Amino acid sequence: MKKGFASDNNSGVHPAVLEKIALANKGHEKGYGEDQYTAAAVTVFREKFGQETEVFFVFNGTGANVLGLSAVTQSFNSIICAETAHIEEDECGAPEKFTGCKLLPVLPEFGKITSEAVQHHLKGFEFEHHSQPGVISISQATEMGTIYQPSEIKALADLAHRHNMYLHMDGARLANAAVSLNMDFKEFTKDCGVDVLSFGGTKNGLMLGEAVLFFNSKLTANVKYQRKQSMQLYSKMRFVGAQFLAYFENDLWKKTATHSNKMAGLLEKEIQKIPEIKITHPVESNGIFAEVPKEIIEPLQNRFPFYIWNEETSEVRWMTSFDTTENEIHEFVALIKEFLK
Amino acid sequence: MKKGFASDNNSGVHPAVLEKIALANKGHEKGYGEDQYTAAAVTVFREKFGQETEVFFVFNGTGANVLGLSAVTQSFNSIICAETAHIEEDECGAPEKFTGCKLLPVLPEFGKITSEAVQHHLKGFEFEHHSQPGVISISQATEMGTIYQPSEIKALADLAHRHNMYLHMDGARLANAAVSLNMDFKEFTKDCGVDVLSFGGTKNGLMLGEAVLFFNSKLTANVKYQRKQSMQLYSKMRFVGAQFLAYFENDLWKKTATHSNKMAGLLEKEIQKIPEIKITHPVESNGIFAEVPKEIIEPLQNRFPFYIWNEETSEVRWMTSFDTTENEIHEFVALIKEFLK
Amino acid sequence: MKKGFASDNNSGVHPAVLEKIALANKGHEKGYGEDQYTAAAVTVFREKFGQETEVFFVFNGTGANVLGLSAVTQSFNSIICAETAHIEEDECGAPEKFTGCKLLPVLPEFGKITSEAVQHHLKGFEFEHHSQPGVISISQATEMGTIYQPSEIKALADLAHRHNMYLHMDGARLANAAVSLNMDFKEFTKDCGVDVLSFGGTKNGLMLGEAVLFFNSKLTANVKYQRKQSMQLYSKMRFVGAQFLAYFENDLWKKTATHSNKMAGLLEKEIQKIPEIKITHPVESNGIFAEVPKEIIEPLQNRFPFYIWNEETSEVRWMTSFDTTENEIHEFVALIKEFLK
Amino acid sequence: MKKGFASDNNSGVHPAVLEKIALANKGHEKGYGEDQYTAAAVTVFREKFGQETEVFFVFNGTGANVLGLSAVTQSFNSIICAETAHIEEDECGAPEKFTGCKLLPVLPEFGKITSEAVQHHLKGFEFEHHSQPGVISISQATEMGTIYQPSEIKALADLAHRHNMYLHMDGARLANAAVSLNMDFKEFTKDCGVDVLSFGGTKNGLMLGEAVLFFNSKLTANVKYQRKQSMQLYSKMRFVGAQFLAYFENDLWKKTATHSNKMAGLLEKEIQKIPEIKITHPVESNGIFAEVPKEIIEPLQNRFPFYIWNEETSEVRWMTSFDTTENEIHEFVALIKEFLK
Repeated sequence: MKKGFASDNNSGVHPAVLEKIALANKGHEKGYGEDQYTAAAVTVFREKFGQETEVFFVFNGTGANVLGLSAVTQSFNSIICAETAHIEEDECGAPEKFTGCKLLPVLPEFGKITSEAVQHHLKGFEFEHHSQPGVISISQATEMGTIYQPSEIKALADLAHRHNMYLHMDGARLANAAVSLNMDFKEFTKDCGVDVLSFGGTKNGLMLGEAVLFFNSKLTANVKYQRKQSMQLYSKMRFVGAQFLAYFENDLWKKTATHSNKMAGLLEKEIQKIPEIKITHPVESNGIFAEVPKEIIEPLQNRFPFYIWNEETSEVRWMTSFDTTENEIHEFVALIKEFLK
Repeated sequence: MKKGFASDNNSGVHPAVLEKIALANKGHEKGYGEDQYTAAAVTVFREKFGQETEVFFVFNGTGANVLGLSAVTQSFNSIICAETAHIEEDECGAPEKFTGCKLLPVLPEFGKITSEAVQHHLKGFEFEHHSQPGVISISQATEMGTIYQPSEIKALADLAHRHNMYLHMDGARLANAAVSLNMDFKEFTKDCGVDVLSFGGTKNGLMLGEAVLFFNSKLTANVKYQRKQSMQLYSKMRFVGAQFLAYFENDLWKKTATHSNKMAGLLEKEIQKIPEIKITHPVESNGIFAEVPKEIIEPLQNRFPFYIWNEETSEVRWMTSFDTTENEIHEFVALIKEFLK
Repeated sequence: MKKGFASDNNSGVHPAVLEKIALANKGHEKGYGEDQYTAAAVTVFREKFGQETEVFFVFNGTGANVLGLSAVTQSFNSIICAETAHIEEDECGAPEKFTGCKLLPVLPEFGKITSEAVQHHLKGFEFEHHSQPGVISISQATEMGTIYQPSEIKALADLAHRHNMYLHMDGARLANAAVSLNMDFKEFTKDCGVDVLSFGGTKNGLMLGEAVLFFNSKLTANVKYQRKQSMQLYSKMRFVGAQFLAYFENDLWKKTATHSNKMAGLLEKEIQKIPEIKITHPVESNGIFAEVPKEIIEPLQNRFPFYIWNEETSEVRWMTSFDTTENEIHEFVALIKEFLK
Repeated sequence: MKKGFASDNNSGVHPAVLEKIALANKGHEKGYGEDQYTAAAVTVFREKFGQETEVFFVFNGTGANVLGLSAVTQSFNSIICAETAHIEEDECGAPEKFTGCKLLPVLPEFGKITSEAVQHHLKGFEFEHHSQPGVISISQATEMGTIYQPSEIKALADLAHRHNMYLHMDGARLANAAVSLNMDFKEFTKDCGVDVLSFGGTKNGLMLGEAVLFFNSKLTANVKYQRKQSMQLYSKMRFVGAQFLAYFENDLWKKTATHSNKMAGLLEKEIQKIPEIKITHPVESNGIFAEVPKEIIEPLQNRFPFYIWNEETSEVRWMTSFDTTENEIHEFVALIKEFLK
């Protein structure tokens, strides 16, 4: 397909990741995570997040979210999240099917949920007719490309913990958030009270594989069984371990995410000069949402693929990736200008 | 407990129903619905709703809703309903757990959902990432005591069918709705396009038991297995069949529901005279919602039990029942006036 | 239908039970178990089983089994039971669907499972690929009418507990077992190490309703939510509470079960005199299994309904009930003899 | 780890597969299977299995089995399989959890089930109390390394179809079976009546990824949703498509499986010369099961890792792989002889 701005998972694998996979392809290794690469990757995660962190590798983001939520819920719990959350909009009901829980959507502001909005669902505790609020789940970066500030995360974590609930974070684009916040991962996750984290890398240069991190080892007694039962246990797990080793080596994740965010920033800057286009959300990571004159959308897509987000309002989504080039941005912007004439 | 306005299921069983149960307690009958009383009850339902109606008796309202929804969904479907719907608020996640489906709440107007509001969720068809919209579910009467007009039901049914979806109706208080509309059951259910109906009677004088009605026999091939697997198959089913025989005999259901609605109407009339109290929803069946000065609530409850609906706004719910008396209404109103002095 | 030996749930309700229901039909009572009759029934159960017993009423036997099993399992557990167990053969997969667990059938001896047979499945502990053995489940009396001796129950309980597993007992016919063993309920349940008990009465004269008893209150923190989510929470629960009050009053349960067992004993005695018929299981409660010449089965069924258990071996099941009469036994035996001529 | 005979998934990725992955890592591709490599892989599958074959790629074998079974069952169905089947023994209850079905194990003969044994479970049709037999599932090659002959598969398919059931085949080691039978894949799958096939390659040189094949397109209307909901939809699916392209190119699969089987044959030949060791199953693919004197097991494992299969009988499993060398076999056998001295 033509390279464009459709999705950060349309890009391939970073060469350094592929190299590490090839390096790990030596001799025999025990399956299902008992290999040296997985062990080394766990060690790196613990260096980043603290020694008591429990790490479980899975295949994909939906698997990571569902496994993480399974670990901290019973089927009679409810999970509160943004109406735009991946677990609500884009997982075809996997969380409900596998956990049995009710998802309670909250109207977000620029993709983020507030304590005030969550409060609406914090009721019916101990009342057996009502699904028991069990988890608040947020995405960082959000599906709208915005970023929760540490104080916002901490407020939601405190709210959750005050009600004996847990805070789950969907970090499919956690690297983009870290770069945007200019923080270490730990500072805006564990240190803010996140209990369970889906740590993704596929949208930032990995081939596949996510890590589910638990910052409270009391939560993990059953996780290995839940991972297997949720079909997320990979036999040749060394090839996921190896990828994460490459991801952290020389801060590869930071380079790729920094570049990706930077390209979004460049695109934003250029778009702001075009009065016919209205950016609809703060651009804080690697996604731009904008209302664009309807007539130029299809011609534009033909040259640079991207998705329409809202047909009615003519809103589109442009995602940049670790392999987006400045030239592509400039070509794209030039094209927009040309079409708008 | 003291008699009051807490719930229409706090009343007992109508004597005619108990009599019929005793009458059915003769000799042996085959279990699990193959008895004469169940057969006779099915016959009556078919007289009321049409010969091609399929009838499945279950234990309770949650069971009826879940069984009905199971029959018309796959686990990757979504079910659209009011935020105040019983299936969303009061079944502890039974629909999610048993069907695997996602429930999509809609902000209702006085307990009712509109086609416009539903429209928001009619998207993502054929898109495998998105739970496929499968059912619109409404309650008649609603949990707020309001009534859908036939035209409103028809509009929702048409909307559902245009998208190859189904319309489910939770009829826990269907008799109260029929009386309120002054219509036969069939006119505002099957004739308006309802596909699956939970037909309840427990809140209107039965001991227990609901009927799940299907108006399209193509939907019912699997229902008998789903009923058993959902733990809703009653061995001595004759005692449910007998109750429905009593319910329909001499239109018992109409007498009890008429009385119940009338008592609510009387209470409404009297309350309207009290300026300190604001009725918050149209009173169209046997429930009244009203904002009441906080300080009189507890003293009132001590004499006539009822529930606080919304702590913040000091809103309460008063339900009348088939055995509520005019005297009780007058005593209650007098008490309110006294406490307000 | 004609009275016969088809099932003990083909009989009606004992008059004393119906009377108590009518007595409980006075005034208003809070719903969902917060009424005086339910409270009184719980008190009686605690007198029988010990003060620390936790009691949850549900609608039926399948519901009781599934709720009890839910409370002591996670979805990655396995449940070991007889191939003939109700939970394996007769619940249409309700345990799997609701608990997510694997059921591991064991070939029983006369309906009973032994520690030796269970041992086969006690493997794979801590191995995440393997469903973790969580529960041993037995029926008392068994589906084949046989009875576990206390020593046998204790052996299975000890085996379970040694592996951090639980012992569940399906007591759909517990009264028949108690009478057969000439013991109090507690002696062969709680005192033998049973953790969770489905206490049934419907097959012994009740209209409906079962009690799930837990002898370890640590197991019950979630049960009220699980009951609601499994559609087993009855609104007008007083009518189940009342039945159990009648059941225990003047040991009604013992009278009805004694009679029922006695009728089976009489039938057994008479059948033993007929050389053409071979009783296939020890007759220890109210069921007789026998191989009967094929040609007499249908004519016999026409006069006294009963079920064929095994078409191939021409094995039939005859169940006696609390309302079976000596005359019926004698008529039935006479008929057999006549048909065999 | 030391190279040995522990599992064929302890080996790495065949270099040709890794090369193809690197080749596919060019530019952008649409996610979730809408890329050129996935399309090309589907084309190859259709060349092998027939144009009407429907192909769904997933992450792993458990995912493939569960997705395939989901497509042909409702939750009230049962799935009949060998007691040693992967779906029964090694998936931690994933089939039960995700499909809701009951699994009915059958005692196999050398890992294979017979029509006679299956027959035992073909009962209770239309009887709502009983899980409805829906699927027969077999593994080819079996978990014991044995192979179903086409006639045996056909017999099971016919049996299934006569009862409106489906035949599912777990082909985690399908290549080893094809080589053993010296047949094309299609001849002993689709042509024998298999309805759904899990086509694996990870145990034969792939990095990851399985294909679920349906030979009846009526079965696949819902599969794309079920794949997503079961967390098995891979975003960068091109990297699975590419692997299967490599797998079929120049019959790579055949070379690797032939070698693997040949190594098992060599090991068998050598072992047969050692009277102290008893091979317990016919060696028909790449696994050998043998009873080995207890005292030599641990020393052997220290040099060549492998698993004990049955602690009690001192039975072990030796798996050969595409990268097993003749030298390793000879060294291993020499070691055994030395230890036995």
